[in-house]
Amino acid sequence: MPDKILDDISHRRYNTLRGSWILVSPHRTKRPWQGQTESPGVIDLPTYDPQCYLCPGNKRASGDTNPDYKNTFVFINDYSAVKEEQEDYTSPDAQGSLSSLLLQAEPVKGKCYVLTFSARHNITLADMSPSEILPIVKTWTEIYTSHISPKSPLAAIAKPTHLPPSDHHAHVGAPKEQYRWMQIFENKGAAMGCSNPHPHGQIWTTTTLPEEPALELEQLRKYHREQGGSHLLVDYARLEREKGERVVFQNETFLVVCPWWATWPFETMILPVKHIRSLIDLSDKEQMDLAETIAETTRRYDNLFETSFPYSMGIHQAPLDGSKEEFECSSLHLHFYPPLLRSATVRKFLVGYEMMAEPQRDITPEQATVRLQACGGEVYRKTLQ
Amino acid sequence: MPDKILDDISHRRYNTLRGSWILVSPHRTKRPWQGQTESPGVIDLPTYDPQCYLCPGNKRASGDTNPDYKNTFVFINDYSAVKEEQEDYTSPDAQGSLSSLLLQAEPVKGKCYVLTFSARHNITLADMSPSEILPIVKTWTEIYTSHISPKSPLAAIAKPTHLPPSDHHAHVGAPKEQYRWMQIFENKGAAMGCSNPHPHGQIWTTTTLPEEPALELEQLRKYHREQGGSHLLVDYARLEREKGERVVFQNETFLVVCPWWATWPFETMILPVKHIRSLIDLSDKEQMDLAETIAETTRRYDNLFETSFPYSMGIHQAPLDGSKEEFECSSLHLHFYPPLLRSATVRKFLVGYEMMAEPQRDITPEQATVRLQACGGEVYRKTLQ
Ligand SMILES: O=P(O)(O)O[C@H]1O[C@H](CO)[C@@H](O)[C@H](O)[C@H]1O
Ligand SMILES: O=P(O)(O)O[C@H]1O[C@H](CO)[C@@H](O)[C@H](O)[C@H]1O
Repeated sequence: MPDKILDDISHRRYNTLRGSWILVSPHRTKRPWQGQTESPGVIDLPTYDPQCYLCPGNKRASGDTNPDYKNTFVFINDYSAVKEEQEDYTSPDAQGSLSSLLLQAEPVKGKCYVLTFSARHNITLADMSPSEILPIVKTWTEIYTSHISPKSPLAAIAKPTHLPPSDHHAHVGAPKEQYRWMQIFENKGAAMGCSNPHPHGQIWTTTTLPEEPALELEQLRKYHREQGGSHLLVDYARLEREKGERVVFQNETFLVVCPWWATWPFETMILPVKHIRSLIDLSDKEQMDLAETIAETTRRYDNLFETSFPYSMGIHQAPLDGSKEEFECSSLHLHFYPPLLRSATVRKFLVGYEMMAEPQRDITPEQATVRLQACGGEVYRKTLQ
Repeated sequence: MPDKILDDISHRRYNTLRGSWILVSPHRTKRPWQGQTESPGVIDLPTYDPQCYLCPGNKRASGDTNPDYKNTFVFINDYSAVKEEQEDYTSPDAQGSLSSLLLQAEPVKGKCYVLTFSARHNITLADMSPSEILPIVKTWTEIYTSHISPKSPLAAIAKPTHLPPSDHHAHVGAPKEQYRWMQIFENKGAAMGCSNPHPHGQIWTTTTLPEEPALELEQLRKYHREQGGSHLLVDYARLEREKGERVVFQNETFLVVCPWWATWPFETMILPVKHIRSLIDLSDKEQMDLAETIAETTRRYDNLFETSFPYSMGIHQAPLDGSKEEFECSSLHLHFYPPLLRSATVRKFLVGYEMMAEPQRDITPEQATVRLQACGGEVYRKTLQ
């Protein structure tokens, strides 16, 4: 194990997926913590909350009433960050002027959805079995499919997901134009800015390709070109399986790793072992493998500090629209960014140095892996009824 | 005012300084907030705290005792993220192997300092007058000077700062090797991961050029080459002075703006109106102007929500070592990244969408400017004695 020395010395690691560096200071965990502490995740909640705007049958800010849905339910965010219709904008600045160089703006249109994960107010992904998570995977797939450009090779292979009618999002309407990107994500827990514990995620689509996927796509394309047609994440998955040091869980289709370049203390990535461009590429069996992988990841998080573990999770995959090369070089994967560092209440702050200079982490990804490997099995608390 | 439409529509703005985009959704402030709230900043503290490891005369974790300093005091962080001496590391991977591509690491050496801003435990920069802040500016300048490469054109013009002996950092010793970068920063407030309210900042130096300054330096060099020798931030300062819409404060030497591309709700940048490469370029008068600008910025922050306003602040300037082009293209400036959005307790969370896709803000920088312009004058609370 020639890399063991990296457990002791400060070093930086390169994130090949986004083309950036992070600083690793393994010895720094000895620092005492006298700063802010988080409230541990709330888990003592009712199955149904009459005040919750996500529970079945309740009224929302828009005045709409939620249907009596069973699993998932999709609606347009009452406070969307982007909208389908707005006034046009073209910069008033003459080309080549200082303003046109230094005050650049472009309009962004799009649509923001909210997606509930369950009718039950008081559970989380960690409390759900793979077959209870499967409808979420199918709903993500369906909503991605209904927004994809007909030019995408993925459009041709899309198939119906056979969701029960109550899980349907037909009522949200077809998109008014072809969007470029769909970002599926979940903010879980108060520490991650989530203001409603009812299990839910969000889906924002935009006419623009956002910063992070643009960085990744560039790295994926570069690797594909320079490595004779190989795919970065397929090569990376193979390497991680060989090494074993950063593998938290695996099944036939997916791998959960604490990536070599992880920034957050217990950051993980779910990645397929073969080249999968988007959710549409998954067979029924592979959808179930993804559901199992999500269950395994979220349960381990909750077990780690015996708390409802906060995180932000997001899905990266092929853009909705783009070039042939972009569709083919994209690799489906999920990021989990959880803030906790030492316990249910002590988090890592990515602040001064991290904001001004470079992300910095205190434990190595290999140390985090060992901790998460040991957290398998049932969730530590009795599943709430 | 042709850009007024940007107050109403979703758009993205380009950050020319770091080469990245951010999403602006001005209408989104109407969202109700039911999520996590922060504790308002603590201000009811004693002038001297016998438990504080930063107060004069107290003992630290290392066993050392702080001198009876008057203004600033510099010492080596007892829990440094980087160290001057550690085992060497060279990657064990054969060139061209998958590991050498995907598991890249490089060792980082350096030194981490803590710098107190005042002997008084219970004040902050917002409570201090420009002449009380001046010793901090002089200490930053002195410590930067003592680490600069003799190859830098700045080395030749460095002059003694005439700090009183108690403010000296001579006892921290000369650096063991030539470092590449010095990051001066302050984390203020529990919300920004600060665990001790005693006013202090940090200074981390490294053998590597960190991610953020590397991005900025690249943009500064590119602009300099493409715009016939002009400096990006000098042009930007001129443009902002002309437009006026984002100028919070100005004196003869400096400008405080809510930058066009600000990510945090009340983010500001302090930038000089002429080309200044580093703290060494400042005359005595300009040092005082910087002290005044810092006082003006921090007081406005505290007045905005009548609280001790949390933020991370950092100084970007010329690298300690580098190419001639890097020294000459660098522009001294300070970033303030404060998290609060609506009140002393409601912050902006940069989470799911922001982490996975693109930073997103709810109010425009122009709206933030108007609010901060109105917060001048004395600090809202009686200065603590
Ligand atoms: O060094 P401190 O103040 O103990 O720690 C604080 O600032 C550091 C530098 O930004 C961060 O890495 C830590 O997460 C934060 O808690
Ligand atoms: O949309 P929500 O859940 O109200 O808001 C949360 O997620 C958004 C998307 O990541 C962020 O912009 C907000 O700052 C955060 O509080």
